[in-house]
Amino acid sequence: MSYAADVLNAAHLELHGGGDAELRRPFDPTAHDLDASFRLTRFADLKGRGCKVPQDVLSKLVSALQQDYSAQDQEPQFLNVAIPRIGIGLDCSVIPLRHGGLCLVQTTDFFYPIVDDPYMMGKIACANVLSDLYAMGVTDCDNMLMLLAVSTKMTEKERDVVIPLIMRGFKDSALEAGTTVTGGQSVVNPWCTIGGVASTICQPNEYIVPDNAVVGDVLVLTKPLGTQVAVNAHQWIDQAERWNRIKLVVSEEDVRKAYHRAMNSMSRLNRVAARLMHKYNAHGATDITGFGLLGHAQTLAAHQKKDVSFVIHNLPVIAKMAAVAKACGNMFQLLQGHSAETSGGLLICLPREQAAAYCKDIEKQEGYQAWIIGIVEKGNKTARIIDKPRVIEVPAKD
Amino acid sequence: MSYAADVLNAAHLELHGGGDAELRRPFDPTAHDLDASFRLTRFADLKGRGCKVPQDVLSKLVSALQQDYSAQDQEPQFLNVAIPRIGIGLDCSVIPLRHGGLCLVQTTDFFYPIVDDPYMMGKIACANVLSDLYAMGVTDCDNMLMLLAVSTKMTEKERDVVIPLIMRGFKDSALEAGTTVTGGQSVVNPWCTIGGVASTICQPNEYIVPDNAVVGDVLVLTKPLGTQVAVNAHQWIDQAERWNRIKLVVSEEDVRKAYHRAMNSMSRLNRVAARLMHKYNAHGATDITGFGLLGHAQTLAAHQKKDVSFVIHNLPVIAKMAAVAKACGNMFQLLQGHSAETSGGLLICLPREQAAAYCKDIEKQEGYQAWIIGIVEKGNKTARIIDKPRVIEVPAKD
Repeated sequence: MSYAADVLNAAHLELHGGGDAELRRPFDPTAHDLDASFRLTRFADLKGRGCKVPQDVLSKLVSALQQDYSAQDQEPQFLNVAIPRIGIGLDCSVIPLRHGGLCLVQTTDFFYPIVDDPYMMGKIACANVLSDLYAMGVTDCDNMLMLLAVSTKMTEKERDVVIPLIMRGFKDSALEAGTTVTGGQSVVNPWCTIGGVASTICQPNEYIVPDNAVVGDVLVLTKPLGTQVAVNAHQWIDQAERWNRIKLVVSEEDVRKAYHRAMNSMSRLNRVAARLMHKYNAHGATDITGFGLLGHAQTLAAHQKKDVSFVIHNLPVIAKMAAVAKACGNMFQLLQGHSAETSGGLLICLPREQAAAYCKDIEKQEGYQAWIIGIVEKGNKTARIIDKPRVIEVPAKD
Repeated sequence: MSYAADVLNAAHLELHGGGDAELRRPFDPTAHDLDASFRLTRFADLKGRGCKVPQDVLSKLVSALQQDYSAQDQEPQFLNVAIPRIGIGLDCSVIPLRHGGLCLVQTTDFFYPIVDDPYMMGKIACANVLSDLYAMGVTDCDNMLMLLAVSTKMTEKERDVVIPLIMRGFKDSALEAGTTVTGGQSVVNPWCTIGGVASTICQPNEYIVPDNAVVGDVLVLTKPLGTQVAVNAHQWIDQAERWNRIKLVVSEEDVRKAYHRAMNSMSRLNRVAARLMHKYNAHGATDITGFGLLGHAQTLAAHQKKDVSFVIHNLPVIAKMAAVAKACGNMFQLLQGHSAETSGGLLICLPREQAAAYCKDIEKQEGYQAWIIGIVEKGNKTARIIDKPRVIEVPAKD
């Protein structure tokens, strides 16, 4: 016990000696004897959750797996109570076990470097995998595995500096979440890849099946949008042609602040958000990642039992990133809800009378805002953003 | 139940209408409207388990994770009986759970295409992941996730043909193993990547901690070596320069037979082998993959409680592949035990008096041979192959 507490303290120190957005210095390759031009994000041509196979293509491709599935749906029971079997399309798999009433809740995710600080990259990758559990209201993870691909283009020196830092970040984030990393797989690959597997064995009351939205619920989002815009804008600081397209709407300082806010946000666990889902009787949630706010909202809407639809009115966006997104010809489709996020917030359906208290509680516990961004109406299980949504500028520091 | 049985029958039909080494026709790209020159194995520069980060490099890199570990080792207990926590370095993680006496046994693996038949590639990837559970004597898998990277170099057409076939092969293999695939992650990546995660929740008596070898035990291997040599030789049929180096020792027909034997062997589950480990009181096992026979034998030896060492006398090799390995200047280091295998056999420590019965039983149940390949001596927890090991030529058909 004392050991675990020590490690958590160490992780805490690391956080506040280095992990905090305001305190953590930018990663300096030369401090590790690497060339000053070393950039982790250059070891892949795609960034973060922008690497996903497009949603429509994926649906088509996985239909081969899906078919198994519906026919078995009615089967698993325990003491005559059906345990829902949840699978492809939602954030986690939930598998009823042979052992009295227990379920395995499990998820996997991996992607490409999105920030240049290897330690933070490890933290983000871990927070991102865990987020799928948190979206199901699961607050405790029993085990993690790490998935890592070392780029074939890294020198031995780069590899020996970067990979242990990534692993350390991943491990520290796991400790912060109260779990440990016990294994994994490492390969070499043209692009650097980082991810993991998170598993929990729990009782059915420990997770929240995300299909109970009712008319009158409101939608809460627990992290701001715009991580993809921020990490790209940050990279453009060094690319004159790109920078010229956005420099009228944003300063270098703004972009650096937004980048740090994004890094901080992506590495933050959605664990408190998950815990409070139980306290405030959430009707379901999903986490916002590669398919953007609207993509994930639509998936969540499609899985509802009742005839509801989600209407989104407000878009909390990291400060200035909405302007940047507009200035570069809408390539991100941020305000349309399609910009990929990495390790984004939870989108939660809450009873209307509980939502404000939920937001207040999360702010009290974590010091971060959450926002009511939309409502649940009668409808045909779809989601949309209204014509002129209100953009909420979220400052670099809450 | 009837549904599951139907699917298993379908999988069985698929196997005998298509999956069997002798009956399955070579994958014909033109039958799927792809160019005749399409080769799945060209979508990565490394093949199968040859993609592993070298064993020594990996040990160094994961030391950052390992440290957590020993300090917690003494802690997990159930009813005052310590449940061993097993992690990095062995085939599976074993994690004691909060729920009475149960453990999570979990593994992950992914690699690059090693054969050109997408359906068989899916089967091999699945068998390879499950093999880590089987090496621990675990015979039932509760859940599988699939990890898939679609190559950025594939055309849409190629992707739409190949990916569903890979998924089908993976799924069919999972069904054959009595489990299902409930989720996963798909990304795009320069190299095509295929793998998965296998998890089981079980009681401690359902797995075999691989650390109980005693002097006098013998070592049994359940699949022949030489898969890497066979898949490479098969690729060289189309490459005159390479082919010229081996054509004196092998015919095209020999190579095609060896390739099919390898494909069949790699897609075969080690499940019966695992089940029989319990029946014949195995003292521990590992599965032979990327680090070759000797690499994995050394890891297994290093984990023993007693002061033992493993001495390997016999090398069962797919017919003609030892000659091919010699003819191409020993690049594979096959007879030195370093040639990477993909989804290889189990290497099992068995009490001497049980080993012959084990081999006979596996042959009776599956129609495949297993071999006694070495002995356990007093020693310092290492493994070696004797100077002139006997090569057992394993014919394409048993």
